[in-house]
Amino acid sequence: MNKKFAKESYTEMNELVLPNDTNTFGNLMGGRLLYWMDICSAMAAQKHSNSPVVTVSVDNVSFKRSIKLGEVVTIQAQVTRAFSTSMEVRMEIFAQNLPEGTKEKSNEAYYTFVAIDKENKPTPVPELIPETQTERELFEKASQRRELRLILGGKLKPENAVEIQNLISSAVKE
Amino acid sequence: MNKKFAKESYTEMNELVLPNDTNTFGNLMGGRLLYWMDICSAMAAQKHSNSPVVTVSVDNVSFKRSIKLGEVVTIQAQVTRAFSTSMEVRMEIFAQNLPEGTKEKSNEAYYTFVAIDKENKPTPVPELIPETQTERELFEKASQRRELRLILGGKLKPENAVEIQNLISSAVKE
Amino acid sequence: MNKKFAKESYTEMNELVLPNDTNTFGNLMGGRLLYWMDICSAMAAQKHSNSPVVTVSVDNVSFKRSIKLGEVVTIQAQVTRAFSTSMEVRMEIFAQNLPEGTKEKSNEAYYTFVAIDKENKPTPVPELIPETQTERELFEKASQRRELRLILGGKLKPENAVEIQNLISSAVKE
Amino acid sequence: MNKKFAKESYTEMNELVLPNDTNTFGNLMGGRLLYWMDICSAMAAQKHSNSPVVTVSVDNVSFKRSIKLGEVVTIQAQVTRAFSTSMEVRMEIFAQNLPEGTKEKSNEAYYTFVAIDKENKPTPVPELIPETQTERELFEKASQRRELRLILGGKLKPENAVEIQNLISSAVKE
Amino acid sequence: MNKKFAKESYTEMNELVLPNDTNTFGNLMGGRLLYWMDICSAMAAQKHSNSPVVTVSVDNVSFKRSIKLGEVVTIQAQVTRAFSTSMEVRMEIFAQNLPEGTKEKSNEAYYTFVAIDKENKPTPVPELIPETQTERELFEKASQRRELRLILGGKLKPENAVEIQNLISSAVKE
Amino acid sequence: MNKKFAKESYTEMNELVLPNDTNTFGNLMGGRLLYWMDICSAMAAQKHSNSPVVTVSVDNVSFKRSIKLGEVVTIQAQVTRAFSTSMEVRMEIFAQNLPEGTKEKSNEAYYTFVAIDKENKPTPVPELIPETQTERELFEKASQRRELRLILGGKLKPENAVEIQNLISSAVKE
Repeated sequence: MNKKFAKESYTEMNELVLPNDTNTFGNLMGGRLLYWMDICSAMAAQKHSNSPVVTVSVDNVSFKRSIKLGEVVTIQAQVTRAFSTSMEVRMEIFAQNLPEGTKEKSNEAYYTFVAIDKENKPTPVPELIPETQTERELFEKASQRRELRLILGGKLKPENAVEIQNLISSAVKE
Repeated sequence: MNKKFAKESYTEMNELVLPNDTNTFGNLMGGRLLYWMDICSAMAAQKHSNSPVVTVSVDNVSFKRSIKLGEVVTIQAQVTRAFSTSMEVRMEIFAQNLPEGTKEKSNEAYYTFVAIDKENKPTPVPELIPETQTERELFEKASQRRELRLILGGKLKPENAVEIQNLISSAVKE
Repeated sequence: MNKKFAKESYTEMNELVLPNDTNTFGNLMGGRLLYWMDICSAMAAQKHSNSPVVTVSVDNVSFKRSIKLGEVVTIQAQVTRAFSTSMEVRMEIFAQNLPEGTKEKSNEAYYTFVAIDKENKPTPVPELIPETQTERELFEKASQRRELRLILGGKLKPENAVEIQNLISSAVKE
Repeated sequence: MNKKFAKESYTEMNELVLPNDTNTFGNLMGGRLLYWMDICSAMAAQKHSNSPVVTVSVDNVSFKRSIKLGEVVTIQAQVTRAFSTSMEVRMEIFAQNLPEGTKEKSNEAYYTFVAIDKENKPTPVPELIPETQTERELFEKASQRRELRLILGGKLKPENAVEIQNLISSAVKE
Repeated sequence: MNKKFAKESYTEMNELVLPNDTNTFGNLMGGRLLYWMDICSAMAAQKHSNSPVVTVSVDNVSFKRSIKLGEVVTIQAQVTRAFSTSMEVRMEIFAQNLPEGTKEKSNEAYYTFVAIDKENKPTPVPELIPETQTERELFEKASQRRELRLILGGKLKPENAVEIQNLISSAVKE
Repeated sequence: MNKKFAKESYTEMNELVLPNDTNTFGNLMGGRLLYWMDICSAMAAQKHSNSPVVTVSVDNVSFKRSIKLGEVVTIQAQVTRAFSTSMEVRMEIFAQNLPEGTKEKSNEAYYTFVAIDKENKPTPVPELIPETQTERELFEKASQRRELRLILGGKLKPENAVEIQNLISSAVKE
C-alpha cells in the first residue's frame, strides 16, 4: 500500500450561515457547525484512504466565538496521522464577515474515522508522511491524543496510557 | 436564586432516521447525531437556567455502533452540575429498531452551555441539587471533567489542574 | 400474538422551533406541527405493533394557541386501542417557553395507522390492554371515533353507524 | 368589503416526491403531505382574504393510496365558504406518475384558516360567492362541517348542533 | 410514437418563500429559485416525454426583481419544442404578494432536458405540436436558441451556426 | 476605492452529495448544483466588493456529466471583471469520487452579481486587476459576455452590440 503525504488530504469547505442554521439570537448553532465539521473531515479522511469512512470519535471541541447569520464558515481539514485502519483529522475553523473583510479563527478540533470496505469492515489505510514542521508536530502528538481518546472512550485504562502519563508528569515537573 | 433538582432538567428527544440523515451506506451520519445532541442538551440547559444558552464545548464523543435508516434515536439529557454561569449536560444515546423491538445504548456524551442574558452576556444560573446515587456521582466528577475541558481548551495549564493530577496519580498507583 | 399494555407504546418528542419552521410572523406553521405529530405517533404505533406502519387517517385537529420561534414543542403519543391491523394513537401537544418556564397545552389529536408486512400488506397487531382510568375511557370511546372516521372517509353509511347514533341521541336528550 | 368569487382563490401546487419526503419503503410520509397541504390551502385563503392567515383546524383526512418516490403530488385548493373572519378551504390531492402517464386521486381534505391583521387579531374577510353547481353544494354543506368541527374541537355542544342533528336524523330515516 | 400538444406539458408550481430560502436581507436567493425552476421544468419535460429526464442546460437567466420572504413564487412551465431526445422548456416566473393582492412577472427562462431510458441512455421523445400563436413563435425560434446553446456549450462552431448568423445579420441590417 | 487582484476573490466550496440532493436515479439534480453555485459565486463576489450582493444573472450552463450520490462536488469561483457596480464570477465545477480517487471536470459557468448598500441600492465596487494569462483573457472577453447577457436579457439591441458583432463576423470569416 502506498504512503501518502499529509497535504494530499487537505480539504476546505466554505458554508454561508443561513437562517435555519441559527438560534433565536441569529447565531450559528453549535450543532450545525459540528455537522459541517463531520462532513469536511470525512472528505479529508476519504481522500487519504480512498475508502468510505465512518466517524468513530470527536475530541473535545470548544466554541470560542459566536458566528453570525450571513457570515461564512471556513473549515480546513487535513489528516494528521494514520493508524492501521483509522485516521485522525485536524480542522481549523474560521468565521469570515465578507462585507467587513474580517476573518477570525473560531476553533480547532480533531475527528477520528475508520476506513471501511464493502462488507462494512475496517480496512487498512496508507501510512501518512508529514512534511512541514507543523505536520511533523501534529503527527508526533497524535499518539498522545489517541491514548486520551481511548481512555475517555473506556477502551484503555489510565495505568496503561504511557504517553499520557509522561505528558502529565513532565507538565507537572516544569 | 432558587436551587433546582437535577431531574427538573430531564429532556428526552426521539428522532426517526430519515434518508437525508444517512450516508451512502444507509447509516446515520455522525454529524447529524452531534447536531441533534446539541439541540437536546440545549433544551435541558434552558430548563435548568430558564435562560437562552449557547454551546461552549463538547467533550470527547465515541460512536460505538452504527445506527440505520428507519431506526429511532433516543437522546436523554440531564444537567449534572451548574457552575457560576455554565452547566454541564450529560446525554445517553440509544438506537431503537422498533419493528424488531430492540433498544441498544449507542454512546454517551457531555456538552457544556453558558446561560446568557438579553445583552448576550453570561448570566448566573441556579445551583443544581443531585438526588440519586448516580446524580451525586456525576455531580462529584463534574469538576474533574471541567478541568480536563479547560486544559484541552487551552484555558488551564496541566500543572494547575489539581483534580486531574490526583485522578491520574491514583489511577497509576492502583 | 401477545397482548401489550397501552403505556408500552408511550413516545415523547421534543422539538425546538427553528426559523424554517415558522411563518412570516415567527409562529410555528400548522403544517410543520402536523408533520412532527405524524412522526411521533408513527413511532408509538411501531412500538405497539413491532411492524412498520403507514398513516391511514388524521382526525380533526384544532390549533388553539400560536407557538413561537424558540419555543419547544412537546408531543406525547400513546396507542389508545388496537383493531385487527390498525391502531389509534392519541397525542397531547404542549408548547414550552423554557426561558420563561411556562408549559401550556396547545392541542390534542388522533392519528390512525395500519401495520404492514414485507409485502406492504396489512398485518395483525397485538391487542391493547388499557390500565389506568384514562386509558380505559380512551379505549372505550375509540370505537365511536372509528365509526365517525369511517363515515367521514366515506367507508360507512351514517345509518349503519350504531355507536354514533347512540352518542348523538343521548347527547340531544340530555 | 368586496365579495369575491370562489374560483379567485384557486391555487395549485405540484411537488416532486424526493428521498427525504419518504419513509423506509420509499413512500411519501403522511406528515409531509399534511405539511404541503397546509401551505397550499394557506395560499388559497390568503388569496381570498388578502391577509396573512393562520391555520385553526384540519378536518379528518384519510390516506387512501400510497404515493411513491419520484411521483408528483398535485394539490388543488379553493375556498368553499367564508365566515366572519374564517375561511374553509377544500383540497383535492392527486398522485401522478409522469413516466407512466397516470394520475390518480389520492384524497381530499378541508383546512380552516383565520385572517389576521398586523396586531395578530382576527380580521373580517370578504364574503364568498359560489358559482358552479359544485361550488354551491360545497358552500351549502360548509355550515354542517363547521358545526362538526366545533363539536369535535369542544366549542359546541352536540345538543346545540342543529345542522348535524338534521343530517343524522335524515340519514337514519333514509 | 404519438405527437403531443404543447399544452399537455403545462405545469404550474407555487412556492411560499420561507426563512431558509432567503438571504440576510429577507430576499429569495437566486439559487433557490433556480432549484425550484429545475424541478418545475423537469416535471413539464416528464409530462411530454413520459420518461425520466435529466437537465442538460440552462439558458441565460436574468433576475429583474427581488422576491420577499412570505411572497409566493409562481412558476409556469411548458415544453416549446422537442428535438430527437431532448426538449426545451420555457418558464415564466411571477412573484405574488397575496396580502396586497399583487402579482408581478419576475423573469423567464429556458431549461433543456434529455429523456432517458432504464439504462440511463437518451431515448426518443414525441414530436411537439404548437397550437396557439405564442406556441408557434416559441417553436419557430427554438432552433435559434438551440444553436446559441450549442455554441455557448462549445459543441457548435459559430461559423456553422446558420440560424444565429441570419439572426444577427438581419438584426444589424434593421 | 482600492483596486483588488482577481485571486483575492478565489473561493472554493466542497459539498458531499447526500440522498436529498439526488433524483430517483441517485444522480445530483441540476437545480441543487445551480443553488450551490449561486452561494459559492456570491461568496467570491462579496470578497471582491466587501458588500452584500444580489444575483442578477446566470449565463448558459451545460451539464456534461452526471454526478452520483456520495461523490463530492468541488466549485471553484473567482471574479473575472468588475464593472461599475456589478461583477462577473466564473466557476469551474468538478466531481470527485474519493474512494476511487477520480476528479473530473463537470462544467463551468458565469454568474453576475450587483453589490448593494444598506438601502438595497447598487453601490460601486473596486476595479479588478487580472494577473495571470488566464485571468487576463477572462477579463478581456468579459465585455463580450456582458453584451450577450444584456441582449439575452432584453436590455441591449443586437445592432448596438459592437463586441458581439465583431466576434461573430470574425468567427464567420475564419
